[in-house]
Amino acid sequence: MESFFTFLEKRVDDCSSLLCVGLDPHIPDLKEPTAASARDFCLDLVKQTARYAAAFKPNAAFFEVFGAEGWTALKQVVDAIHEESARMGSKIPIVLDAKRGDIASTAEAYAQAAFETLGVDCITLSPYLGKDSIDPFIKDSEKGIFLLCKTSNPGSGDLQDVSIAGTDDRPPLPLYEYVAQLAAQWNTKNNIGLVVGATHIEATKRVRAAAPDMWFLAPGVGAQGGELEAAMKAGLRKDGKGMLIPISRGISRAASPAKAAAELRDQMLNIRHEISK
Amino acid sequence: MESFFTFLEKRVDDCSSLLCVGLDPHIPDLKEPTAASARDFCLDLVKQTARYAAAFKPNAAFFEVFGAEGWTALKQVVDAIHEESARMGSKIPIVLDAKRGDIASTAEAYAQAAFETLGVDCITLSPYLGKDSIDPFIKDSEKGIFLLCKTSNPGSGDLQDVSIAGTDDRPPLPLYEYVAQLAAQWNTKNNIGLVVGATHIEATKRVRAAAPDMWFLAPGVGAQGGELEAAMKAGLRKDGKGMLIPISRGISRAASPAKAAAELRDQMLNIRHEISK
Repeated sequence: MESFFTFLEKRVDDCSSLLCVGLDPHIPDLKEPTAASARDFCLDLVKQTARYAAAFKPNAAFFEVFGAEGWTALKQVVDAIHEESARMGSKIPIVLDAKRGDIASTAEAYAQAAFETLGVDCITLSPYLGKDSIDPFIKDSEKGIFLLCKTSNPGSGDLQDVSIAGTDDRPPLPLYEYVAQLAAQWNTKNNIGLVVGATHIEATKRVRAAAPDMWFLAPGVGAQGGELEAAMKAGLRKDGKGMLIPISRGISRAASPAKAAAELRDQMLNIRHEISK
Repeated sequence: MESFFTFLEKRVDDCSSLLCVGLDPHIPDLKEPTAASARDFCLDLVKQTARYAAAFKPNAAFFEVFGAEGWTALKQVVDAIHEESARMGSKIPIVLDAKRGDIASTAEAYAQAAFETLGVDCITLSPYLGKDSIDPFIKDSEKGIFLLCKTSNPGSGDLQDVSIAGTDDRPPLPLYEYVAQLAAQWNTKNNIGLVVGATHIEATKRVRAAAPDMWFLAPGVGAQGGELEAAMKAGLRKDGKGMLIPISRGISRAASPAKAAAELRDQMLNIRHEISK
């Protein structure tokens, strides 16, 4: 049985891409403020960008806002990605950006909702409730998680940057780095990754040092102001992989999303070659 | 315009209760593993316990597991609580237990999903992403949040108990207490409360000291082993309020949920009187 990150790396090799296409149907970007319009917005993006996508990342919030109809739309988008994968003969992982986090039997219900009912391969989770809140999502190594570590937003410092007191064994360190250390210990099945905002270069370096082998989901390039090259230099693993870079509005708002995705894919490839020289 | 906690306190006075009835349609407790059965399970609980409920707390996970149909069921349950409130002439607050937490425009979509699309009054949120992830939920003082502080699960210590380094102004303290201090500062509109597990008596005392006026949502009584009396002694405010105590299985699995809710309400009242003597 392969692990989630083995599966992701296979896809990364198949399409020579580190690009994760974000499916965020913001209401102002839709033709109409309806679930059907959100679905069509995403279906068009999937069709245009599948060739260049190492993964797709729908964000649950933009579907939930339409209630039950939004969940129907989300399911249709997930199904369409599976169909596109089958057509291309290369399976594209789907990361549900949901940032869930709850205890025991509740976490099990969320895991079932994501992996079985909806049929995605990976989900973003909050670490705040601790290891037992994560266990139901990682028991099957084929399913993966990205754990929030250092997020891309301005307020991320409120908690994530607070300094954890040192012990006999280690110096003081920011909370996000402690989360990275914990996640590296917990990652015994190669199915835990970390969310590390591309807007924070120093933090990306520290997290890479704390977790040399783990995959990062690095949001914040483009709309949020993160610089692609600096982020990739700070976060890529020695093998030139280990970073999945989600772009949403930079693709969906382009005149041609297909062209934008192709260019971003190539830009990332060039930086990767440049770095590995 | 009244604040969320003014509204909650009105209801607490109306029904002389600190009991929050949890609506957690676990699949093993249902007649059939369907969304319709989850809905019926909750509608029966609402009907039987509304008289004694200071609030209702549906947990999103147990609905999400049924996909779009689950969201339809959740909406029907919320609507039924509104109808029951109108019938009784006393509005019962609805707390959506969803533990969301995301950035900027995404947080706005989640807030809209909960407060507008679904029509609940309050939501549980994770603090990990910081103040800006919370802002969209608290801008309207009539809508409230309970921020995760010290959760009831065994793994809560992994992050919440880590010691934050001291500064010139304050000694080292556990992360959950730091979260309580931040939340107390952020609570300028009387619409932020804290989730503090009834399973952690010492932590409850510390959080009460850090946030003397705030409301706690204190899960863990019953199924999770928390002791009601000790928790209430540690967490009640001086005015005998400030704690909303959610019970789910202790009511739903009783031979008569109505009787169980009445007894729990009375038990809490007695402890409250005992303490205020």
